[in-house]
Amino acid sequence: MGRGAVVLLSGGLDSATVMALAHQQGYRLYAMSFDYGQRHAHELDCARALAQHAAVVEHSVVRFDLRAIGGSALTTSMAVPKDREWGATDPIPVTYVPARNTIFLSFALAWAEVLGVTDIFIGVNALDYSGYPDCRPEYLRAFEHMANRATRLTTEGGQTLVVHAPLIDMTKADIIRHGLSLGVDYGATTSCYDPAATGAPCGHCDACILRARGFAAAGVADPLVVRYQRPHQR
Amino acid sequence: MGRGAVVLLSGGLDSATVMALAHQQGYRLYAMSFDYGQRHAHELDCARALAQHAAVVEHSVVRFDLRAIGGSALTTSMAVPKDREWGATDPIPVTYVPARNTIFLSFALAWAEVLGVTDIFIGVNALDYSGYPDCRPEYLRAFEHMANRATRLTTEGGQTLVVHAPLIDMTKADIIRHGLSLGVDYGATTSCYDPAATGAPCGHCDACILRARGFAAAGVADPLVVRYQRPHQR
Repeated sequence: MGRGAVVLLSGGLDSATVMALAHQQGYRLYAMSFDYGQRHAHELDCARALAQHAAVVEHSVVRFDLRAIGGSALTTSMAVPKDREWGATDPIPVTYVPARNTIFLSFALAWAEVLGVTDIFIGVNALDYSGYPDCRPEYLRAFEHMANRATRLTTEGGQTLVVHAPLIDMTKADIIRHGLSLGVDYGATTSCYDPAATGAPCGHCDACILRARGFAAAGVADPLVVRYQRPHQR
Repeated sequence: MGRGAVVLLSGGLDSATVMALAHQQGYRLYAMSFDYGQRHAHELDCARALAQHAAVVEHSVVRFDLRAIGGSALTTSMAVPKDREWGATDPIPVTYVPARNTIFLSFALAWAEVLGVTDIFIGVNALDYSGYPDCRPEYLRAFEHMANRATRLTTEGGQTLVVHAPLIDMTKADIIRHGLSLGVDYGATTSCYDPAATGAPCGHCDACILRARGFAAAGVADPLVVRYQRPHQR
């Protein structure tokens, strides 16, 4: 029985891949998801199915309401941008949720401390992403630095907490190829910021576009698209 | 009209003093409290009364349940230690709540970003405290460093976020003297980790002991004790 790890599991393509990677590395999996008032709460159904399929030791779903704080198209009635072109110098888009990864990682830190585990996995990547500040390596290093001064486990306990972001330098196509080699069922994941009530992806938001480009570059069909029989490539 | 600041307001003696200090410095006050399943939820009544009295612009109460994560006498049925003696080399006590300040500051960071304010006030102090790792200056510096890499406001926006901990080097007696000079009504605050249903302090937990020692050293009567007519000095 290996060491335990807290894995942030959104139900998306990236976190599903990270969970498979942590499993491959021999970690016992403690999956953590967040019901934070997100428009795309369908992702929680995916997270639950993925956690069950991966036979995690425990799946914790933490509830709070970021709609009260607002500031994002994912938590308010602000429109999710569709069919937009963007580049590296573009402003951070309205789908950015203020301090979301900091909040998520803080709860993961609390759980890790109670479990007595020192490894946290998060599925951020800095290449094929939408320009969120809390997906960058320097942010993650700063969080890890802070975490090692924040808890009993890492001060009195003398343990070192590590934030693993194994996808950080990978393209979406690389992530998909690697995940497929690990047996990830991408048909059970979701990426869309604005899905239909059925969970069907819109095909036009940044997340759908990045996903479609990733599958196209990997040269494989997206099983999610096949499942909903609605091609969403552009 | 001054700049705005997010003030973490627990309803305790320290945070009430910090709020008065921020007000004195001319900040518009955005108070933030947390209903996290704490045993001493009476503190939220105090926080609401203090926020109303201080005429804050807004008081946000964020709800989540740390009882599901556990690991503390403040969120489980674990006994709160009473009448204990402790020193600087003692282990961190069971009233420590894993990663609590990190979670609180993360929500404050999110709200600050949405409000467009760059000042967060927190009432930690490193002298008369119970030995919590997330009350130390090096922890706060590390959080601030991380926060400045975490958000749109502090990256794209070029703003610098500051975590103010004006009580960090003060004794409890100094805090009380200073608060009284600012007109803080300590009778409206609470400190007890294990209050009666009426809100009456137990008089025997670490927080009650620190408070009693602080008032004794400041040479003033604690209006809270007077109010409940139950002396709780030891």
